[in-house]
Amino acid sequence: MAKPSRSTLQPDRYFSSDPQQKQIARELYASTEHLPLVCPHGHVDPRTFADPDFNLGTPTDLFLIPDHYIFRMLYSQGISLERLGIPTVDGAVVETDHRAIWQIFADNFHLFRGTPTGTWLTQELHSVFGVDEKLTSETSQSIYDHIADQLTKPEFRPRRLFERFNIEVLATTDAASDRLHDHRSIRESGWKGRVVPTFRPDGVVNIDRPDWREQIERLSEVCGFEINSTSRLISALEQRRAYFKEMGATATDHAALTPYTAELSETEADRILHSALEGTAGEDDARRFTGYLLMENARMSIEDGLVMQLHVGSYRNHNRAIYERFGADKGADIPIPHEFTRNLAPLLNKYGNDARLTLILFTLDESTYARELAPLAGHYPAVKLGPPWWFNDSINGMRRYRDLVMETAGIYNTAGFNDDTRAFPSIPARHDLARRVDADWIAGLVLRGIVDRTDADEMALDLAYRLAKKAYKL
Amino acid sequence: MAKPSRSTLQPDRYFSSDPQQKQIARELYASTEHLPLVCPHGHVDPRTFADPDFNLGTPTDLFLIPDHYIFRMLYSQGISLERLGIPTVDGAVVETDHRAIWQIFADNFHLFRGTPTGTWLTQELHSVFGVDEKLTSETSQSIYDHIADQLTKPEFRPRRLFERFNIEVLATTDAASDRLHDHRSIRESGWKGRVVPTFRPDGVVNIDRPDWREQIERLSEVCGFEINSTSRLISALEQRRAYFKEMGATATDHAALTPYTAELSETEADRILHSALEGTAGEDDARRFTGYLLMENARMSIEDGLVMQLHVGSYRNHNRAIYERFGADKGADIPIPHEFTRNLAPLLNKYGNDARLTLILFTLDESTYARELAPLAGHYPAVKLGPPWWFNDSINGMRRYRDLVMETAGIYNTAGFNDDTRAFPSIPARHDLARRVDADWIAGLVLRGIVDRTDADEMALDLAYRLAKKAYKL
Amino acid sequence: MAKPSRSTLQPDRYFSSDPQQKQIARELYASTEHLPLVCPHGHVDPRTFADPDFNLGTPTDLFLIPDHYIFRMLYSQGISLERLGIPTVDGAVVETDHRAIWQIFADNFHLFRGTPTGTWLTQELHSVFGVDEKLTSETSQSIYDHIADQLTKPEFRPRRLFERFNIEVLATTDAASDRLHDHRSIRESGWKGRVVPTFRPDGVVNIDRPDWREQIERLSEVCGFEINSTSRLISALEQRRAYFKEMGATATDHAALTPYTAELSETEADRILHSALEGTAGEDDARRFTGYLLMENARMSIEDGLVMQLHVGSYRNHNRAIYERFGADKGADIPIPHEFTRNLAPLLNKYGNDARLTLILFTLDESTYARELAPLAGHYPAVKLGPPWWFNDSINGMRRYRDLVMETAGIYNTAGFNDDTRAFPSIPARHDLARRVDADWIAGLVLRGIVDRTDADEMALDLAYRLAKKAYKL
Repeated sequence: MAKPSRSTLQPDRYFSSDPQQKQIARELYASTEHLPLVCPHGHVDPRTFADPDFNLGTPTDLFLIPDHYIFRMLYSQGISLERLGIPTVDGAVVETDHRAIWQIFADNFHLFRGTPTGTWLTQELHSVFGVDEKLTSETSQSIYDHIADQLTKPEFRPRRLFERFNIEVLATTDAASDRLHDHRSIRESGWKGRVVPTFRPDGVVNIDRPDWREQIERLSEVCGFEINSTSRLISALEQRRAYFKEMGATATDHAALTPYTAELSETEADRILHSALEGTAGEDDARRFTGYLLMENARMSIEDGLVMQLHVGSYRNHNRAIYERFGADKGADIPIPHEFTRNLAPLLNKYGNDARLTLILFTLDESTYARELAPLAGHYPAVKLGPPWWFNDSINGMRRYRDLVMETAGIYNTAGFNDDTRAFPSIPARHDLARRVDADWIAGLVLRGIVDRTDADEMALDLAYRLAKKAYKL
Repeated sequence: MAKPSRSTLQPDRYFSSDPQQKQIARELYASTEHLPLVCPHGHVDPRTFADPDFNLGTPTDLFLIPDHYIFRMLYSQGISLERLGIPTVDGAVVETDHRAIWQIFADNFHLFRGTPTGTWLTQELHSVFGVDEKLTSETSQSIYDHIADQLTKPEFRPRRLFERFNIEVLATTDAASDRLHDHRSIRESGWKGRVVPTFRPDGVVNIDRPDWREQIERLSEVCGFEINSTSRLISALEQRRAYFKEMGATATDHAALTPYTAELSETEADRILHSALEGTAGEDDARRFTGYLLMENARMSIEDGLVMQLHVGSYRNHNRAIYERFGADKGADIPIPHEFTRNLAPLLNKYGNDARLTLILFTLDESTYARELAPLAGHYPAVKLGPPWWFNDSINGMRRYRDLVMETAGIYNTAGFNDDTRAFPSIPARHDLARRVDADWIAGLVLRGIVDRTDADEMALDLAYRLAKKAYKL
Repeated sequence: MAKPSRSTLQPDRYFSSDPQQKQIARELYASTEHLPLVCPHGHVDPRTFADPDFNLGTPTDLFLIPDHYIFRMLYSQGISLERLGIPTVDGAVVETDHRAIWQIFADNFHLFRGTPTGTWLTQELHSVFGVDEKLTSETSQSIYDHIADQLTKPEFRPRRLFERFNIEVLATTDAASDRLHDHRSIRESGWKGRVVPTFRPDGVVNIDRPDWREQIERLSEVCGFEINSTSRLISALEQRRAYFKEMGATATDHAALTPYTAELSETEADRILHSALEGTAGEDDARRFTGYLLMENARMSIEDGLVMQLHVGSYRNHNRAIYERFGADKGADIPIPHEFTRNLAPLLNKYGNDARLTLILFTLDESTYARELAPLAGHYPAVKLGPPWWFNDSINGMRRYRDLVMETAGIYNTAGFNDDTRAFPSIPARHDLARRVDADWIAGLVLRGIVDRTDADEMALDLAYRLAKKAYKL
């Protein structure tokens, strides 16, 4: 069979096959393709930019080992994480031959057919690294060589890539106790790239996390006082938020199993905190404490202006054996159903009418899109909807989101795109895919007479660039 | 940029862009476009037709103030309801300059891009009022003038519009205690327009409503006896149903938070009623009492032949501050998930095999379409499915409904279209949109060889006209 | 109107109308159209093949009486099951004039417009029986005559049809206590058709079934020992699994109302078993006992290699009156919502990392596709997803499944197609429809640049043939 050529990356990829729609999509995409990338939420390590000479490692270091989207799929077909070089918690030996791991990856690249991971990788290999061949068992080693060679070059240092990618701003995600040394280094280095932190207090808020006490101690240490009451915890959070804001943060981020919110009396909150410190708090305590601190954080957001993100519905570390051997974020987080209408009522009744609050909601339960989220965003001044998250950050996922959300919420109650990735070199591919899918969606509206072309032009710019910038105050 | 012209209302709007499908859709639509409008469920005030000279007010009175679909979207972007002239419960002063309100509306008309409200409005302005320009900040006042001018003309009196719209029958929605004076006036006026009431007893059935006691007193008054037992409440309902039927009603309508149904002993039902009268009934009492009276109303429907509609899943008045200041129906009703299979089992086991009952189900939880509703409608002789409701009464919502319901239930277990609107002049636009979307859906079936053209022609007439008329016995 | 001709069965049916996509779909379909049929899960009675001269009866016997997909739709429109000749439990007289029943069916064939049942029937009449006319009130009797005539011919004996259909293997579904006499007859007959049993122990596992004690007694009898403890029940299951495996089975099948799994101590399990034997077990006992035996069966599958199927979410016999008069499987099974992430955690934590287990999951709750099932299958080595089941085994249902599952799970964590039918002559139509829909889906991926043509060719073969064969070890 003939060697697949560059043509595997079609210039009109992800557009409708209808010639008229494709033509409009092409034109709309042309207006957004080269806009700067606004990256208001993600998980790139700020160390990557703190050191001007940061080296991205081997192709396997770069593509596979940090990316649970990829290795979970290999694992699902019976390939052990040890063979893929995933480090263990206890430092037990795993595969260290990165060429061998890359070969396994290439041998199984067919598993990614039709997946967003597959499309991002193909584009990333092509556009970032200049790989024109398809990744197969046969081409595996020559592609490895090619990428390894590229990675030695100065223009593949992260700061240079950041500039080449045309990133206007990149937000990282950082623990409440983080001293933000890397962010400070970036700011003090004189480099013009804008990398800002995001305040994520989950570690000290969710008392059911195995490392909660450790996180509380760290927070205590960085704040300089003991955290033995809810009021002190709240003071600590306020202090850290102020510091994060000073360091450029415009947003906070909160993960919760469900969107439960409720007020607690100080007595009750203290009782739960003390139980947690004594290790006797139960599941319901954890839920109530998180729900209470979500409300407190909403209040703080009104006061300090930080945009509040809420990511809901991931049941973390579903596979205990994997968690115990390899730790968190190993592809074993599985969504659960959840409900927003009743759960968010306490928070929204208290703060939802206050336009100083921006609460951006993310879900893993698409059944809530049309039923709960779009009506909430289409009513409360404080509520905006984040883009399709995680498993739903995909071509079909984006189309479902548009289909289910837009008619009730309109696009102006949404927060644009974010890439939410820890895989830095995949950022351009992710934005490009989103811009293409959005251009095609808008083209469909034009063609069916739902919006006119004038509106379409504006919408394309809004979805690709303006909405994210505005929602996150960037 | 050139002034948008009439062409913003594309003649082939909402059809697929595929030329073959568009051609078939066009032909099917041509067969339904001019059929009379059957409006079996809606919220137009019968007063509108009782007075032959009824004046629809200013453009703002007509389009914005009564329509929570519109002002909730403006509110979601931080525009206060006071600025939009929405009347307060306590009569506190709100904006009275209708031109100023209209200007805000026009300044923010971009919020409706891609929404059904936007498409209905555009068509309504064009087809009912002859507005050819796009509503923008610039055109706002001239369009206001134009509409205001039209509204002074005799042909814009509601009865004349009713005739021009080619409405065959329009059902209103009326409280159990309503004496139907307006309906009587209409009947006695000699005007030929068919406007019929619908019996909606929610006010006296749902004991958790804030105004329940007031409603019970009104019912008591109109019936001429005290309602101090369940049997008397049931007698009152039966008496009112008979009166509504005499006044032309063919249907009842019931709203419930969930589709819970269950029998109660008379003792237990009386206990709950007495608690409610004493103001001590709890949430569970309310749920059980509603569930019990749903069953009683099903029994009555078998006896008197009134079609029973059940609308499920709206959590009313989610935003307490808005409710307290502006009252109900202000865009703050948010859906909740619900379940039909177990909840309706008591009612369906008792009455679902009786073909004398027509129970038309509406949901705000689309996850029930394929999972529960289509299988129930595809089995029980009594069950029919209502069209996509409220937030889902939209182009995408209709397509999802067809996609999720039709293969299991077929179209003959559905109840056709209804516009469910309080915005009288939007009725033709809503029916037109539905007829176009249906024509396009059927055209897709033809083109993919799923139904032949002969069947398609029948289906188009069924969906646009016959099914609603038959299901509602009109 | 002219008589509909053969053209009602379009050669390009179910493909997209886009000419480019249609062309690719056609080519992909050409590569799968004539592949043998792998039928790893279904409900054809093995008696059909045990007797070489088995007669399929009248057209009504063949098409209508055994097929609840068909008669439930007629029933939903008020046609009694008695009039349709459905046998009663107590043998009360029902309609016996098969021509009259067929006439009712034809008179109401419009009910099936746009349904999978309608499309399968049309193709079956055409391709299996050579019927070129559309089924209508007018053509009803001549079509009946034609089919009845065909059914007298030797080439319409089931074994001959099996060969003509090009079935490579057909799995039946058989109770745990079944002695598999028919399967033995088939094997000993020298006929080359491969018909294998599937071990389905629901009857003895789900203690809330009305006939559970009867089933336990049958199992006891066939095993030769009394089943008065959980360990004996487990021994019995193990013994029967071994026998089924010997008789060619490669899989087991389990139906559960929810996917609840949990371990039980032997004491607790025995307590529940004894309660069940005494008739005092409650609903929660049933749930826990089923959940425990699902885990035990997973363990057995690891040991004996039988593939484990789990079908979840059907609330059986929702309509009690129908159940009491006509028995089970009468079109009154209605799905309920369910949850996999938490419910399967015990089973998956114990066995999900073991690649010797293949656990194929089926659901009637599509909201779990993207949210729970695809992430689970995309992580756990043991988990595969079965094709869209029952109500969702349809053109739209298949597209939703692909849309919701593939991006996260990829196609290689799915188990291909199965027809799941008790209607033997509908098998080719069902596979043909699936192959067409899949070809069209893949063609769409090619055209939008998501997969290349080389990958597409492989995927078409995988979905049509290889995946089912591999997942079921056939």
